[in-house]
Amino acid sequence: MESYLDYQAAKPVDQRVLETMLPFFTEKFGNPATIYDSGNEALRAMDRAREAVAGLINADPGEILFTSGATESNNLALLGYAQRNRANGLHIMISAVEHISILNLAKQLKKSGFEVTELPVDSFGAVRLDKLREGLTDSTILVSVQYANNEVGSIQPVAEIGRLCRERGIAFHSDAVAAQGLLAIDVKREQIDLMTLSSNDIYGPKGMGALYVRKGIKVKPVLIGGGQERGLRSGSENIAGMVGMARAAEIMRQEMPQEAKRLQEFRNRLIRDILDTIPDSHLNGHPETRLPNNVNVRFDGIEGEAMLLSLKQKGIAAATGSACSSKTLEPSHTLIAMGLRHEQAHGSLELTVGRFTQGKDIEAVLEALPAVVDRLRRMSPLYNRTG
Amino acid sequence: MESYLDYQAAKPVDQRVLETMLPFFTEKFGNPATIYDSGNEALRAMDRAREAVAGLINADPGEILFTSGATESNNLALLGYAQRNRANGLHIMISAVEHISILNLAKQLKKSGFEVTELPVDSFGAVRLDKLREGLTDSTILVSVQYANNEVGSIQPVAEIGRLCRERGIAFHSDAVAAQGLLAIDVKREQIDLMTLSSNDIYGPKGMGALYVRKGIKVKPVLIGGGQERGLRSGSENIAGMVGMARAAEIMRQEMPQEAKRLQEFRNRLIRDILDTIPDSHLNGHPETRLPNNVNVRFDGIEGEAMLLSLKQKGIAAATGSACSSKTLEPSHTLIAMGLRHEQAHGSLELTVGRFTQGKDIEAVLEALPAVVDRLRRMSPLYNRTG
Repeated sequence: MESYLDYQAAKPVDQRVLETMLPFFTEKFGNPATIYDSGNEALRAMDRAREAVAGLINADPGEILFTSGATESNNLALLGYAQRNRANGLHIMISAVEHISILNLAKQLKKSGFEVTELPVDSFGAVRLDKLREGLTDSTILVSVQYANNEVGSIQPVAEIGRLCRERGIAFHSDAVAAQGLLAIDVKREQIDLMTLSSNDIYGPKGMGALYVRKGIKVKPVLIGGGQERGLRSGSENIAGMVGMARAAEIMRQEMPQEAKRLQEFRNRLIRDILDTIPDSHLNGHPETRLPNNVNVRFDGIEGEAMLLSLKQKGIAAATGSACSSKTLEPSHTLIAMGLRHEQAHGSLELTVGRFTQGKDIEAVLEALPAVVDRLRRMSPLYNRTG
Repeated sequence: MESYLDYQAAKPVDQRVLETMLPFFTEKFGNPATIYDSGNEALRAMDRAREAVAGLINADPGEILFTSGATESNNLALLGYAQRNRANGLHIMISAVEHISILNLAKQLKKSGFEVTELPVDSFGAVRLDKLREGLTDSTILVSVQYANNEVGSIQPVAEIGRLCRERGIAFHSDAVAAQGLLAIDVKREQIDLMTLSSNDIYGPKGMGALYVRKGIKVKPVLIGGGQERGLRSGSENIAGMVGMARAAEIMRQEMPQEAKRLQEFRNRLIRDILDTIPDSHLNGHPETRLPNNVNVRFDGIEGEAMLLSLKQKGIAAATGSACSSKTLEPSHTLIAMGLRHEQAHGSLELTVGRFTQGKDIEAVLEALPAVVDRLRRMSPLYNRTG
């Protein structure tokens, strides 16, 4: 068995979630748009699912739109909101450390005539509130800042951003994919207008996500069709997926307080031991204001890809950054935005723990890593120069 | 148990499909973009899935794009193709009996400056080839005609349409959701450039679909993000869904010849008995050139919705048209396009059989229907006038 320390890239579906889903594949397969019994049953399941997902972030059930995943939710939040509210202004702000799907959406928005500003972050990866304040204009219609960063785990000052936006009547979208289930999110308290949620990131099935759309906020649909989800998201409803995401949200809500503590102990153990035992190693991101499941460390003089391959040979699954870009040779845009040099970004390793992580997975990586780093450094002309 | 005769609205997932999917929810959950073992395993599963889905329509694996369902595939085919090829012309033709998602996409295309012509159909619901020939212009870039109609089961002359389009260098998209698994589709023989496929319609999981994009055909992505599916469909890959759709395609391919015959016998039995035993009843659509699973009949002087409710009380699930519009009071646009009057369209009943239909389901509806029709007619001022 692989020691899996890449929960940010993908998560297994919880067995309890899968069991809840099973009947909706086979016997309870009705279409909620139909009037007979199996259709009505599907409709009720969908309503209950909306309630459970809403409960995870303190939203109202009517504010939850189901989608095919976080990417589609981000599309609906950014393209959908911008296009629908174009008459009110053409300026949008995103942070420089957003997930690649947001960065690519920003490029698309620029092509269609919007002005997009990238908010800089501090050396820990947290959005600079002073720059946000300075950057907001009369033409700003939308600010999109993640709840927490998926690569270095930095928790963003969302409540402050929410307050600044709400005061000015600017919509605030937050991609909560990395944070959901790890932090107690409250869209009312934090004054968030749009929030991206992903099913798989809370141990639900893939191909499923949601967008929280605060009552009164208008978005233009991205997928056109039969008019499901109040016309905002067409396509036959994936009831099994909705039910699965809902069960995943319920379990998260119940177990979050203890589970976050358990993960945080793993995280702290990993960070402490790595920094203690491996010379010239450094923590990326904030030591405290970070997700309980996230470790991101860098090692002078070595290359992340080589590290991943060596760890792979020892049966350890880890990452250098977000999964989407893990097969390219580009350095992480998040680490660069935090002020690291290219070679520092390239020498970084991301370890994320999760629900099925056990002490032995932590031991495995702590045992393997010093030798891997040492061997690679002995082969590295870079380390000889710097070390 | 409900006697389910609404397979066009939703289908259960085949138990064999579900069993193939199960490991991909739990142990085999890797992200195909990662380099370690579970990631590689996901990548291989995805490649095999693409091959199996391609096999159902005689496409090459590289021509299959996975999506979140038929609606998204239609969006990519119509919006994606039109936007990407706008420089070559602004004229698009669709048939008047397309699924509502295509009709709504056509409206969207008109809003963004395209000219969309609706091809008329004959009284059986088949596209008029003469009108297609007349309607094609130098500015036509795309023709979208379904493989078979989802409401009345009419099989469209796709090979002729394919030939006409290919000769003129016009792209031909076909929505094959109603036909897949019931007819032997061959995109090469039929010269089709883009084809919409749905997983659930072949007893695979919902929230999953595919778009066949012939090599050389260019589309613009609809969902922007991390660049998965060669940049054409972003979002973390739903491997369990893909594997499920693939298994569903394999089973379909193996069982189609015998199964289509079995369904056709049910269909013929239903049509014959209904027309024989119920006075003033008529078949909608062609008696032979129709899907083997589709029955669509109309009864003078009664209202489809009332019929559905009466059948529901007797435990029978049926439809008056496509599920998307079944809760509205609009008459079926397909029946209207075939030349029926509003009251004729409103008096129509659609019965669709499928893999789990048994003789007793057929008996149940044949037993219930005459009394239902009779009772409603006795209450109907309309029937008194016409009958």
